[in-house]
Amino acid sequence: MAGEFDFIAWLRAQQTASALVRVPAGDDLAVLNWPAEDLLLVGVDQVLDGVHFDSAVHSPRQIGAKVMNRNLSDCAAMACLPAAAVVSAALPKGTSLEYAKELYLGMKEAGEAFDCAIVGGDTGSWAGRLALSLTILGRSAGVTPVTRSGAQPGQRIYVTGPLGGSVLGRHMTFVPRVAEARQIAATGRVRAMIDLSDGISRDLGHICRESGVGAVIYAERIPVHLDAGRMGRAGWSPLEHALHDGEDYEVLYVAEGEMPPETLGIFVGMTTAEPGVRLRTPGGGDVPLEVKGWEHGL
Amino acid sequence: MAGEFDFIAWLRAQQTASALVRVPAGDDLAVLNWPAEDLLLVGVDQVLDGVHFDSAVHSPRQIGAKVMNRNLSDCAAMACLPAAAVVSAALPKGTSLEYAKELYLGMKEAGEAFDCAIVGGDTGSWAGRLALSLTILGRSAGVTPVTRSGAQPGQRIYVTGPLGGSVLGRHMTFVPRVAEARQIAATGRVRAMIDLSDGISRDLGHICRESGVGAVIYAERIPVHLDAGRMGRAGWSPLEHALHDGEDYEVLYVAEGEMPPETLGIFVGMTTAEPGVRLRTPGGGDVPLEVKGWEHGL
Repeated sequence: MAGEFDFIAWLRAQQTASALVRVPAGDDLAVLNWPAEDLLLVGVDQVLDGVHFDSAVHSPRQIGAKVMNRNLSDCAAMACLPAAAVVSAALPKGTSLEYAKELYLGMKEAGEAFDCAIVGGDTGSWAGRLALSLTILGRSAGVTPVTRSGAQPGQRIYVTGPLGGSVLGRHMTFVPRVAEARQIAATGRVRAMIDLSDGISRDLGHICRESGVGAVIYAERIPVHLDAGRMGRAGWSPLEHALHDGEDYEVLYVAEGEMPPETLGIFVGMTTAEPGVRLRTPGGGDVPLEVKGWEHGL
Repeated sequence: MAGEFDFIAWLRAQQTASALVRVPAGDDLAVLNWPAEDLLLVGVDQVLDGVHFDSAVHSPRQIGAKVMNRNLSDCAAMACLPAAAVVSAALPKGTSLEYAKELYLGMKEAGEAFDCAIVGGDTGSWAGRLALSLTILGRSAGVTPVTRSGAQPGQRIYVTGPLGGSVLGRHMTFVPRVAEARQIAATGRVRAMIDLSDGISRDLGHICRESGVGAVIYAERIPVHLDAGRMGRAGWSPLEHALHDGEDYEVLYVAEGEMPPETLGIFVGMTTAEPGVRLRTPGGGDVPLEVKGWEHGL
């Protein structure tokens, strides 16, 4: 089996050109020309074997794509333009060079779909399981970043697509809503935004807490994905899967006034002055929308 | 045991203010005001249990400090000013909140020593071992970044301190040479630079390959650390430990002409037109300096 430095030589040959990159991967750090007019957005998301993927089931190309797409989805949540990424890979001892290349190609292809170049990385081999950590840099590029904290009472809540049951497969194959989120934010009506990684019940809670508002969600307006109906969790309805499953990677946003019809968005509820997130049932009553989504325990 | 979101609340309370930070950690991405006059340098380094530290021996505060200091050392290698970092932590199931806080405090303290704020992160718990991955952003801040590729034949090679035997302890406690490297680069004489993470035999090889030069190192000029003499590897002299051990985190640089005496630097050799790295022994003969340092096998 070839060593790390052969892999690094291969990696360097894979690099795609980017107008931003002054010194590419291969030195101690990459050097970028950051556009003077752009804010810099930065964040990190990892994928861990047995948590975010199952290396016995998913291909390395899918796993690589997922770590990139999770980060691209964070760009969508802030309405920024993906610019560059760096990645670290902790590879189980005995990982083949071919497998490592497939991981990288999965990341690269997912990134290239959004002009996001991989400009650096760190590869190590260990007695542990497969872990990938990717850091993404985004540019504001003409759209003011949308945070979680700008919602006010009486505003409309939208989501960009059907929810629930993503564990049946979509959590590995989703396309991050980068382009749609930037179009949505460019309307100037959006006051808060988040990507739905942990379920609407938890993620809408983040917006409410950061913005100091509450929310009411109309049960019959939630777009329930067909996959939610195929889930077999005891005692859960398809609606509950749609509300709590997570890993949908759709975007939820709060807008002032009605969004134009050509903008992607399914109206699902309203922000309120009263704190807390409530579900309005067809019968008319409001019930607290409890957080049942997946919480990473420490 | 408290969940991830309690830890995140604690993390957010720890954040130190930074003039760069417009939206701090807590949203999908942090938002930074990048100085228009600065190049952006970015890279990632991870630390893995059993490879870069031993969780049975080292404290979480030491482990956290190491992942930050490895990245700060990359800033030293490029002569940039550390600006901000994001970090991902893969925590073994059952990790206590206290332990997680200690990891973070180790990173935070090491970063604050160089005004490097942690502006984002991702924490997950899994059935695997402890892995930390940190991405650092650096600013050129008035000093042109120094790469590995600018050396020419006939230039002087310096290192910033004694080498060898760091595994006896210094690999966890080193202070990255950020300030010294910027002073060195500010002289305008430095043509290539790298931090010594993998041993002079391997790391000088990187500079030679990237610059298209060779090098000769004078055996009697190598500053051998006392720890190198305390190493007991069969058949290795202290000099060999100094040349091959790695994890010294001193800086090696190539300069045009002699460096001023007030600049940190121990003269150890010269670049040559002839390719390859050679060791000149006191007896006068040159022998190829083979790479014996630690290579991460895949």
